[in-house]
Amino acid sequence: MVATPSKPEVGNLSAFGPARSTIVGTPLSPAELHQVDAYWRAANYLAVGMIYLRENPLLRQPLHIDQIKDRLLGHWGASPGIAFVYTHMNRIIKKFDQEMLYMVGPGHGAPGFLGPCYLEGSYSEFYPNCSLDEVGMRQFFKQFSFPGGVGSHCTPETPGSIHEGGELGYSISHAYGAAFDNPNLIVVTLAGDGEAETGPLATSWHSNKFINPIRDGAVLPILHLNGYKINNPTVLARVSHEELEALFRGYGYTPYFVEGSDPETMHQAMAATMDHCLTEIHRIQAEARSTGNVTRPRWPMIVLRTPKGWTCPAYVDGKKIEGFWRAHQVPMGGMKSNPDHLRILETWMRSYKPEELFDEQGKPTPGVMAAAPTGDKRLGSTPYANGGHLRRDLRLPDFRDAKYALSLEKPGTITAMNTKPLGIFLRDVMACNMTNFRVFGPDENTSNKLDAIYEVSKKFWIAEYFPEDADGGELATDGRVMEYLSEHTLEGWLEGYLLTGRHGFFSTYEAFVHVIDSMFNQHAKWLDICHEIDWRQSISSLNLLITSTVWRQDHNGFTHQDPGFLDVVVNKSSRVTRIYLPPDVNSLLSCANHCLKSKDYVNVIVSDKQMHLQYMTMDDAIRHCTKGLGIWDWASNDQGSEPDVVMVGCGDIPTQEALAATDLLRQEFTDLKIRFINVVDLFRLQPDTEHPHGLSDHDFDSLFTLNQPVIFNFHGYPWLIHRLAYRRHNHNNMHVRGYKEEGNINTPMELAIANNIDRFTLAMDVINRVPKLKVAGAHAKEKFLNMQIDCRNYAYEHGVDIPKVVDWRWPY
Amino acid sequence: MVATPSKPEVGNLSAFGPARSTIVGTPLSPAELHQVDAYWRAANYLAVGMIYLRENPLLRQPLHIDQIKDRLLGHWGASPGIAFVYTHMNRIIKKFDQEMLYMVGPGHGAPGFLGPCYLEGSYSEFYPNCSLDEVGMRQFFKQFSFPGGVGSHCTPETPGSIHEGGELGYSISHAYGAAFDNPNLIVVTLAGDGEAETGPLATSWHSNKFINPIRDGAVLPILHLNGYKINNPTVLARVSHEELEALFRGYGYTPYFVEGSDPETMHQAMAATMDHCLTEIHRIQAEARSTGNVTRPRWPMIVLRTPKGWTCPAYVDGKKIEGFWRAHQVPMGGMKSNPDHLRILETWMRSYKPEELFDEQGKPTPGVMAAAPTGDKRLGSTPYANGGHLRRDLRLPDFRDAKYALSLEKPGTITAMNTKPLGIFLRDVMACNMTNFRVFGPDENTSNKLDAIYEVSKKFWIAEYFPEDADGGELATDGRVMEYLSEHTLEGWLEGYLLTGRHGFFSTYEAFVHVIDSMFNQHAKWLDICHEIDWRQSISSLNLLITSTVWRQDHNGFTHQDPGFLDVVVNKSSRVTRIYLPPDVNSLLSCANHCLKSKDYVNVIVSDKQMHLQYMTMDDAIRHCTKGLGIWDWASNDQGSEPDVVMVGCGDIPTQEALAATDLLRQEFTDLKIRFINVVDLFRLQPDTEHPHGLSDHDFDSLFTLNQPVIFNFHGYPWLIHRLAYRRHNHNNMHVRGYKEEGNINTPMELAIANNIDRFTLAMDVINRVPKLKVAGAHAKEKFLNMQIDCRNYAYEHGVDIPKVVDWRWPY
Repeated sequence: MVATPSKPEVGNLSAFGPARSTIVGTPLSPAELHQVDAYWRAANYLAVGMIYLRENPLLRQPLHIDQIKDRLLGHWGASPGIAFVYTHMNRIIKKFDQEMLYMVGPGHGAPGFLGPCYLEGSYSEFYPNCSLDEVGMRQFFKQFSFPGGVGSHCTPETPGSIHEGGELGYSISHAYGAAFDNPNLIVVTLAGDGEAETGPLATSWHSNKFINPIRDGAVLPILHLNGYKINNPTVLARVSHEELEALFRGYGYTPYFVEGSDPETMHQAMAATMDHCLTEIHRIQAEARSTGNVTRPRWPMIVLRTPKGWTCPAYVDGKKIEGFWRAHQVPMGGMKSNPDHLRILETWMRSYKPEELFDEQGKPTPGVMAAAPTGDKRLGSTPYANGGHLRRDLRLPDFRDAKYALSLEKPGTITAMNTKPLGIFLRDVMACNMTNFRVFGPDENTSNKLDAIYEVSKKFWIAEYFPEDADGGELATDGRVMEYLSEHTLEGWLEGYLLTGRHGFFSTYEAFVHVIDSMFNQHAKWLDICHEIDWRQSISSLNLLITSTVWRQDHNGFTHQDPGFLDVVVNKSSRVTRIYLPPDVNSLLSCANHCLKSKDYVNVIVSDKQMHLQYMTMDDAIRHCTKGLGIWDWASNDQGSEPDVVMVGCGDIPTQEALAATDLLRQEFTDLKIRFINVVDLFRLQPDTEHPHGLSDHDFDSLFTLNQPVIFNFHGYPWLIHRLAYRRHNHNNMHVRGYKEEGNINTPMELAIANNIDRFTLAMDVINRVPKLKVAGAHAKEKFLNMQIDCRNYAYEHGVDIPKVVDWRWPY
Repeated sequence: MVATPSKPEVGNLSAFGPARSTIVGTPLSPAELHQVDAYWRAANYLAVGMIYLRENPLLRQPLHIDQIKDRLLGHWGASPGIAFVYTHMNRIIKKFDQEMLYMVGPGHGAPGFLGPCYLEGSYSEFYPNCSLDEVGMRQFFKQFSFPGGVGSHCTPETPGSIHEGGELGYSISHAYGAAFDNPNLIVVTLAGDGEAETGPLATSWHSNKFINPIRDGAVLPILHLNGYKINNPTVLARVSHEELEALFRGYGYTPYFVEGSDPETMHQAMAATMDHCLTEIHRIQAEARSTGNVTRPRWPMIVLRTPKGWTCPAYVDGKKIEGFWRAHQVPMGGMKSNPDHLRILETWMRSYKPEELFDEQGKPTPGVMAAAPTGDKRLGSTPYANGGHLRRDLRLPDFRDAKYALSLEKPGTITAMNTKPLGIFLRDVMACNMTNFRVFGPDENTSNKLDAIYEVSKKFWIAEYFPEDADGGELATDGRVMEYLSEHTLEGWLEGYLLTGRHGFFSTYEAFVHVIDSMFNQHAKWLDICHEIDWRQSISSLNLLITSTVWRQDHNGFTHQDPGFLDVVVNKSSRVTRIYLPPDVNSLLSCANHCLKSKDYVNVIVSDKQMHLQYMTMDDAIRHCTKGLGIWDWASNDQGSEPDVVMVGCGDIPTQEALAATDLLRQEFTDLKIRFINVVDLFRLQPDTEHPHGLSDHDFDSLFTLNQPVIFNFHGYPWLIHRLAYRRHNHNNMHVRGYKEEGNINTPMELAIANNIDRFTLAMDVINRVPKLKVAGAHAKEKFLNMQIDCRNYAYEHGVDIPKVVDWRWPY
């Protein structure tokens, strides 16, 4: 006789008791029920073991205090629920021969994932020391949250994980990114109810409006109403069923509730619900795939309410543990001072009946192991979670082709939109890679002049269409350009897409890329750790184009001016960070092509989208970008001798202004020897001991001299250059200009002047720093100052800059 | 005869046509309708004028091309909707004599706010040049998005604004922050449908679970379904009524729809709906306030669907404009090249009938002005939007009191939790300020050891209660501690609370404070601009305690280790940024007391919550914190003479390790003269020309010497110190240690060793850098290295550090 779950009662928010579920049924035979429950008990046993034990893993002897870890670390609270879902996914994988990937949202949830992953044998294959026997289990326990061991999150060391979850909020967006273009994959995501309070998670539920049921896989989100955060109830666990159901219907899902604590009825309810959801997903996909009709389906999702710390002691020392916030981390400590606690622990662990679950050698019994799938279908072994296995190189058109490259007779003579040809190149990259490449942006691909891409693939849109969308809307249900006004969601999608072996390109607004500072940090840390894990295969780099840059935000004002993302990037490991500031069309193409081919980096490209002067032929650009920085001979007159001053431009506008300053100076002082350097690859400035792209001191000195003044005009905050170059011999002579938080409503030139990166200020800087101009330069300095004042006056009068601020005389 | 709106039809997503609304009614008499419509037309006229015109503001002559601005900037798309809501708020303010504040979420929405603000006379009072006549209107038009003028957002220069909105996502959380503890205030927030896609906004709808209807005011959110972002439809404008209604019911609101484009019926529908919502809010408040019963009410909210660019030309050059994304910015340009466009503009502007709206002098007619309230009730003049007017100083207990201060016989002899006494101090601050002070944290105030505060005020909670909450839940419906697992929402609440004249304290996890990098940037920019606006009164500083710091994240692992927020902070203006790293209890109390009294800053305090050595008596701490940095004589043996080396600690753990290194060295080398400096106020390191807290070169040199080696042990990324000090004379001898992205699962000492901030590395650094130890130090160096290896071995074996890593011999 199998117990039957019941329909949920509105207003009853208790996580305890027999299962209550939207889908009522008892699909599990007694034998299946026993098997599923045994696997789950074994997983829970392992989770407790890894938190507490360093010896006696199978409890073959009575538990002794010396066998307890000195430092009790790890989070038990969410683990049983995580393992519960893993166990039921196993059943589904076997039943439907389904490809699945599991994303664990709750923080510190590793014990709930590692247990089942070990039981199925995956873990031992990656880590032979943690073999399926007593010795291996002992090691498996000891290493958890132990120095030199593994962490309490699903870190990169965790087989089957592409989502670390140390920072909360990204489980759903990662899941959708993994599902894009993987039509056979279903990603089950467990979103914690604490995590569900974060902003990034709250908007990411809308990702269901970006799934095409024909070409994409599916995501089955499970909201885990575990009830508590560290010390507090969660909001979603304390609102009515009616509100919860409305919320997820409002997000476009059909929610199914599974609630309770009684294992037997909970297994039946979960199995019935998972069967129903899988059948529903398959029906949606089959319908779309057989008819070719793409309309937005109402995908299923599950609300799983279980007690926090499910199956741990209900009370310890008279304090409520199970189903309360006290079960969040280690539910009970103080073994050394309180022998009762040791006994409680032993009783708790024995309640899972380890003797039924593991054989004499400590290996899970055949009955337990049979609950798991085999081979690559195992959640710990799926290649989807080690995306480099699935990754194929992009097919790249030749970026030097005349379709993209700008032809140029002489440097500094024509202007062009720097990002426009990149859009054409990306269009053709897209055309060559229509199943494994996507472009992402928060409503800005047209604004960023990358719109050529729509010629081969439009913006994905599956919500309602209006007739006027045909008139320049560029929307399509098979579009591969992903636009949504949430940088968090886009970044999450892209990370999920890359981590499962595909390629992408993300362009975004410079000031607002700070919105995803923290996501960048976390992804960079993931990549950094992966360098140390042999079995992790290389994945494509995360390519981030930062545009709508500070120097063209004169009219949008102060809040749109922030080039500080680079300061965040340089804090991360030199193994994974790359920054490029190409000043013109051809250098941007060269950089982008390089980045699209690279692996395991975060590549940040800074390039404005508006009209800019063009400096390099494609041949020059390739040569220059390969070196990363170099002297522009055509703009220099030191002819290889020691210059009087080194003028440096880094970034499009700063380079233009530095060149204009050089021009002003050369008109005034015909015997002044100026060396002009442009920097594309920012990390060239660091010593080669600090970054693989760093220049040797010898090379640096030969470019920047040992003791001549260097005027460095930089795109970002000026002190970043000092930070990179402070150990260089000539550092004390480096005078850096850049953005210094001076801006309101300006013209472009006025904004440059306010921050002292303008040609006049730079020219005056040179006069101030070159000894031989100290007296001779006084007149010119006054002249430059007057020119600057004239510029400002004109701008205040007309609202625009003087059409040609000063005549541009390049090239000489 | 007044037209009647109709009930909304499910499935009809068009923004055009006669009004369809949930609340049907025609509350406006023909005269009232005419008045409301006239005000709105006048506002729309002004919005167009400020985008296009530099002359001829009243169209007294036919429009001539020379009267058009050279550069057309500004965003028309959301403006009519913004002005529509402003106009209807005016009616409500007058009808109910209601205190109101208006928060404009849609980006670049200033034209829609500035127009009504000018009409009511507020703008002219703040800016006499923009008088209520033709000359003033001309200036009002010209200055918009014009160099030296005002921006296209509701910037700090905008009377009536506390929400700039340049970065999207924070309108709702700002609104709730403003409503807390302002029982007579209703904040109407217009959330753009583009903004609604952001994560921060998506979770901030749940703020309704944090409003107490007795002591707090109310927020009436209006979702503006304007239909489009820059180039794309918005998701929420393209989902069914059924889903939208469910979504907002799920968020806990009762949604009311107002949809359409026909002005007459839209005015009636909006008036009927606003009347209904206000009555509902008043009923909820009256009920709670008369009974004292606090249960979570279902607050009203409005979904307002209108055409993007409402009332602009429907088509230009055959392209759809009104109700399409083309209306987002300037709906039509090219006046110079296309005389037709000039005529279209003139026809468009005249469609508002300016001759009916403004008198001969250009002043709004009495009929128009009568639609607005008067005095401080005007939305542009409300003191709630200039919070310094309402701000009263905190009543602060004496932080030197024995209740808080730690008494100490000798430095470095005892340990204590640094944040625990701060919690007691905050408890008493709270007790003295129970209507204008709140404490904020993402589920971490207990974890951060600030839990003493619950003795006087618990965590606010108004969702469901369970019996077990009484057992350590610390929840209350009148709690003043705000905990929600969204740093975005907390930061938004706090900003809204401060900007309306109150005080607050926010503690959060160091690694995850990066989640709000961008919000910090925007608030810092707001404060910076306010320094230049005479009429903006000073508000309380934003006090941010960064805890759970990197050096105690050994067990949580790599993702929890990120001290980079400081690098973001130092990019912002020195007028508003302050950073403190107090190393012990008393210095933390001293810093916190100082910060709570300060105005117009963002104060960042870095302090870990665990057990730390104590160094300073309260008297010493006050002296030390006032100086910001200084020599610790008790730890130095240079007795005022030139030292052989300067050892610097900045931050709790780095100071401890630097002291331990000093101890190791003094045992080995009795004639080595070490000067020990501790830095609390980070900006002291910058030159006084760069930051008001900066030390003069003379003072810096006297502390750090001109040419002796300086070993600087820093809490954060080491290069930040170089960035601050690169212009100092002795910079080339500064050797900085700090976090360098080396970490996984470690012990605390192992983590310190991995990043070279440990005592052994520092001691070896000194030997390497002090010439006289070059030979003499070889043996000691080997000894220190062996001690370091012993530490690591012990940690790997036992999972914990050697109980006392080395004997602590302080004080000498």
